[in-house]
Amino acid sequence: MLDQAFQALADPTRRAVVERLCDGPASVSELAQPFPMTLAAVVQHVQVLETAGLVTTQKIGRVRTVQVDPAGLRAAEAWLTARRTRVERQLDRLAALVERTPEPSTPEEE
Amino acid sequence: MLDQAFQALADPTRRAVVERLCDGPASVSELAQPFPMTLAAVVQHVQVLETAGLVTTQKIGRVRTVQVDPAGLRAAEAWLTARRTRVERQLDRLAALVERTPEPSTPEEE
Repeated sequence: MLDQAFQALADPTRRAVVERLCDGPASVSELAQPFPMTLAAVVQHVQVLETAGLVTTQKIGRVRTVQVDPAGLRAAEAWLTARRTRVERQLDRLAALVERTPEPSTPEEE
Repeated sequence: MLDQAFQALADPTRRAVVERLCDGPASVSELAQPFPMTLAAVVQHVQVLETAGLVTTQKIGRVRTVQVDPAGLRAAEAWLTARRTRVERQLDRLAALVERTPEPSTPEEE
């Protein structure tokens, strides 16, 4: 699922769709409005986001409504947070080690 | 840069490389050890991660050492955190709205 989530987020239009949906659910045609692309292209982007678990869609009558699935965002975020904190801890340990290491003695200048 | 970062993270081998580097810097050949792939393939993955700002490399003599760049992880994480918190806030507002809305009066059963 992380493969698909990160893949989905690698596209600026798909990130813009997620961005828009952060303000609330929208129909596919509402989503399409700000983008210079066909409705079909937007539908395809939405499908990629849905497969990746980043949005859910619901069809009522003829209108398909799209909303963000916070769980999908959370999964990708959690992967990054865990690695980032591990790296930072490792860098802190390294910095502490450097601090504890006595400087090599240099011959005094005369 | 987010395009490249998310694209780079969409590959499980590249995520495994980042994972390994969270324990500390490693040479390209050390990185290659656990993977059933050629050194050249690992070098290519490292290049993708470097272009995406997720790792930095340093060549000393004949050895290229790779380390995670926490700033790259932080940038991708920050994008997700900002959107996730916005969605959660929006869902909280929606839940509060539903709570405040009086239930439709139903005719009393006789």
